[in-house]
Amino acid sequence: MDHKKAVVLVSGGLDSATALAIAADQGFVCHCLAFDYGQRHRSELNASKRISAELNAAAHKLVKLDLQAIGGSALTDISIDVPESDLVVEDSGGIPITYVPARNTIFLSIALGWAEVLGATDIFIGVNAVDYSGYPDCRPEYIAAFEAMANLATRASVEGQCFNIHTPLISMTKQEIIKRGLTLGVDYGLTVSCYQATESGLACGRCDSCQLRKQGFSAAGVIDPTRYK
Amino acid sequence: MDHKKAVVLVSGGLDSATALAIAADQGFVCHCLAFDYGQRHRSELNASKRISAELNAAAHKLVKLDLQAIGGSALTDISIDVPESDLVVEDSGGIPITYVPARNTIFLSIALGWAEVLGATDIFIGVNAVDYSGYPDCRPEYIAAFEAMANLATRASVEGQCFNIHTPLISMTKQEIIKRGLTLGVDYGLTVSCYQATESGLACGRCDSCQLRKQGFSAAGVIDPTRYK
Repeated sequence: MDHKKAVVLVSGGLDSATALAIAADQGFVCHCLAFDYGQRHRSELNASKRISAELNAAAHKLVKLDLQAIGGSALTDISIDVPESDLVVEDSGGIPITYVPARNTIFLSIALGWAEVLGATDIFIGVNAVDYSGYPDCRPEYIAAFEAMANLATRASVEGQCFNIHTPLISMTKQEIIKRGLTLGVDYGLTVSCYQATESGLACGRCDSCQLRKQGFSAAGVIDPTRYK
Repeated sequence: MDHKKAVVLVSGGLDSATALAIAADQGFVCHCLAFDYGQRHRSELNASKRISAELNAAAHKLVKLDLQAIGGSALTDISIDVPESDLVVEDSGGIPITYVPARNTIFLSIALGWAEVLGATDIFIGVNAVDYSGYPDCRPEYIAAFEAMANLATRASVEGQCFNIHTPLISMTKQEIIKRGLTLGVDYGLTVSCYQATESGLACGRCDSCQLRKQGFSAAGVIDPTRYK
């Protein structure tokens, strides 16, 4: 088995925990990256650390980045309410207001920088084009374009190495993600998906993210280990 | 004249000040963006604010981002010395050790996020492929790839708008940049290019960046307004 290093974006949610388990299962030595970007609650950062330790990651790094400075999302701008209904609140373009402008691009860029420092050329991100079809930066064509850009941006690329942006969940349903993670031993009780969780990680059960997650466990036919308020 | 908004990356150095003057001259309402990314000195951030005010920018935003967390460059890692010689210190790939891994990608990504919030589709960056030929993320093909990626990454792109990454200095020599800036009224005495300037903005006169700048003023046949130690 090839023990290559990989940088894995681990937000603390269900999807990224599964992406981490898949990277580890593929034999990568995982270097986990999380961002303190002004999100509404810090419990997902605690979850990110716990999950990384549980899945035997080689490192966990937290990078501070003030995305509140640019605003524009319900997840970073406290003047915008997080939607709590069956209807995802969308702006005129059909994009949820929980979309954070250019977030995946910013996170992948910093992952690219750390990968370069580590001498790694593999980056894992748990994006999903099924549940998050409204997010432009969850689409396969976007990921392909990022990879092409990364392969011109870096020292490694000048030296002829190629970056691979792995998106193992991109075409999976929530149900499939959960089933895959369970076979790999992911403890989803450690993960926090809620957009407005309490500091201790209790989920609201009502926001879009909670609803998608609930439906996933239900469809997978397994007990939902989420700790609700 | 079309008064469109643009996001302009303004580090506080000579090149980005000129890029800002060019953007303003083209009729853009300039929203300047600087990063407190763990660089060795803060005088360039003060310079960024002064230059933006001097050139009548509509806004100046400072985003905190801890690039020291990922390390890997003489500019953010205090364990690596900044080179002070005629010979640029390079690693085996011919890339200066003052290269910050993925820096332009990270900065452009955050600029993209802010542009999206502002409803702007134009971003200016003062990269230069002549003086910084060793930096992979200063090459025209890299910028083109970033633009292609940006046009898949965002809400605006879903709505059919196109982002333009403007690089007005990309093929200019330092001498040409200085001459252009002077015709546009840039006060280069306000700018700080030195990799190890003092807190009050005095330049060392010895690092690579100081040497390139000195040679530029000399070749342009104008008085160097830099305040040296």
